[in-house]
Amino acid sequence: MTAHPYTSRLRQAAQAAEEAGLAGLAVTPSADLVYLTGYAPPPLERLTLLVVGVGRDPVMLVPALERPAAASCPVGDRLEIVGWTDGEDPYERAATLLGSGRFAITDSAWASHLLGLQRTAGGCSFVPTSAAVPLLRAVKDAGELELLRRVAHAADRAFVDVLALRFEGRSERELAEELAAALTRHGHDEVGFTIVGSGPNGASPHHEPGARPIEAGEAVVLDFGGRMNGYCSDITRTVVVGEPDAQVREIYEVVRAAQQAAFEAVAPDVPAERVDAAARAVIAAAGYGDQFIHRTGHGIGLEVHEPPYIVAGNAMPLRSGMTFSIEPGIYLSGRFGVRIEDIVAVTDGGAVRLNEATRELRAVS
Amino acid sequence: MTAHPYTSRLRQAAQAAEEAGLAGLAVTPSADLVYLTGYAPPPLERLTLLVVGVGRDPVMLVPALERPAAASCPVGDRLEIVGWTDGEDPYERAATLLGSGRFAITDSAWASHLLGLQRTAGGCSFVPTSAAVPLLRAVKDAGELELLRRVAHAADRAFVDVLALRFEGRSERELAEELAAALTRHGHDEVGFTIVGSGPNGASPHHEPGARPIEAGEAVVLDFGGRMNGYCSDITRTVVVGEPDAQVREIYEVVRAAQQAAFEAVAPDVPAERVDAAARAVIAAAGYGDQFIHRTGHGIGLEVHEPPYIVAGNAMPLRSGMTFSIEPGIYLSGRFGVRIEDIVAVTDGGAVRLNEATRELRAVS
Repeated sequence: MTAHPYTSRLRQAAQAAEEAGLAGLAVTPSADLVYLTGYAPPPLERLTLLVVGVGRDPVMLVPALERPAAASCPVGDRLEIVGWTDGEDPYERAATLLGSGRFAITDSAWASHLLGLQRTAGGCSFVPTSAAVPLLRAVKDAGELELLRRVAHAADRAFVDVLALRFEGRSERELAEELAAALTRHGHDEVGFTIVGSGPNGASPHHEPGARPIEAGEAVVLDFGGRMNGYCSDITRTVVVGEPDAQVREIYEVVRAAQQAAFEAVAPDVPAERVDAAARAVIAAAGYGDQFIHRTGHGIGLEVHEPPYIVAGNAMPLRSGMTFSIEPGIYLSGRFGVRIEDIVAVTDGGAVRLNEATRELRAVS
Repeated sequence: MTAHPYTSRLRQAAQAAEEAGLAGLAVTPSADLVYLTGYAPPPLERLTLLVVGVGRDPVMLVPALERPAAASCPVGDRLEIVGWTDGEDPYERAATLLGSGRFAITDSAWASHLLGLQRTAGGCSFVPTSAAVPLLRAVKDAGELELLRRVAHAADRAFVDVLALRFEGRSERELAEELAAALTRHGHDEVGFTIVGSGPNGASPHHEPGARPIEAGEAVVLDFGGRMNGYCSDITRTVVVGEPDAQVREIYEVVRAAQQAAFEAVAPDVPAERVDAAARAVIAAAGYGDQFIHRTGHGIGLEVHEPPYIVAGNAMPLRSGMTFSIEPGIYLSGRFGVRIEDIVAVTDGGAVRLNEATRELRAVS
């Protein structure tokens, strides 16, 4: 028997389902399944379904050909595993395992699977897991916090490397490749995304780096991250090529102040939306409210986006151990954008930053 | 105006929806969206939804922050793009765009999105795209066939490289890393999977390569693939370390004959399940019917698994231009497994193989 967290996580998940008035959780391949069982098959067209029912033992339905792989997962010997064979209707089998009642289904479960369950499991209804049991993975334990800190530091170090690179005259795509290499060099197992938005492209928050050559004087938004030991990094810094003009400086300081205000708003029991409001108030007061076109942040852990979402309308009280991004931005269409993002963790005394890269405006060459 | 296939694909998709008695297609980020628009955002928690309605112009709902990125996709100037802002309910907006009727939704659309649409779009019902319009991407055009041929050949060359490697005494994981490197070296942009199942592990079709050292005399199942220019490869070969024993030889020849029989069964208008039956008949006749525990194959293109599925119960008639795997296997629990897989294309005259690596039993050192 190896020591691992899965048995207690499965027990806590059943308890959370009960407290939420659910019959249980319907979990498909995803971060939820990894969290609960350590089993990480790719999400594909064949149904794999872990049923964590209230008041009964968990059971997992898997394609017959994946049965040996499932049985060798960390809780494979403590989980009933049922196989289904190609050509059978797996949803009929799943309906029997579910029984009846309201189930939280994995947010990213395939629509084809949900439709199959809705067809066969007439006594069941479904709600998204993030809505029904948003705390399932949101409060991190000490081991998870350590892994999130390590991957955040690896991203910080990648940023330091990038500051030494030449930007002027090179393409966004070249810089994005250098960013990816730096993430890998500092220990990331997987590169998730490397946004490089120069000049007017920086006004598109999720810009896809392209052939555009970066010019002197431009602001460049760098938003990048990936995975290390299963946990995600996500950091944004905005740099300027040579000397920034007055407006870039001004807007940079507004975003920095907004990021700081949101950071200072974080404490246990504070509603998530209040952190969003804190950042938004600073930006609105400076006259750029309409140019801050996205929420302030998102939870992070085994997934790069997960609860808690730091957004207007989310009254969820923050709790010690939650981890999320604080990433306000201002986007001037056709001109430039500025965004500053750190991952923070809630502690009993307020927030701590997991990213430690400088938030001063830095010039690159 | 650049020449691209998207405008005609959007038109054909609306026509296919009409012929299937649908009100339209509800397309989320996926291979379907790439196929129809060239737009490839990652599938995440924020709703992106292309509505291809029968008798009206396509419209795409996107998160406001992704609007510039969406507008710069190949059909961005010919598509109405509607933005929604964090804090709004995107499903209310989506319901207005959908109207009413039966829609085919992307198979891999998130369950949370489908549940949101079911909540707001009361006049709509949903069915999986693969069930309602299975031909959406199944028949490849000449350009797609050429890309599939190229990526298959790149995988073939990776296999040739691997034949020269030492297996005995090395771990499955080391071999898997060498396989990944070979795929990249021969032009893959992305490595998808590298299964190395040695000895008893080969009896688990989707075995995760581990620390087990490979031993002399063992059969080793190698199943690997990835993406090049957006299109997927997927090939399996089984090799033996040194001299095979009589049973490995016998079973190898049964699987090879089954693979050949399935290949020869392929022709336009033949039901997909008949190709599965052809492989299964050979294996059953040899006495190993119960050890062939999966379907014979799956379609391949922008996705590694897509229609047509070569499985009992699928009466879909094959059509010229379809591409799929033929991959029978025999798995002796606790001992070893053998699988042989090629990607084939249907032509007017029968099947052609896109993989050309030898199917003779090859010894490695």
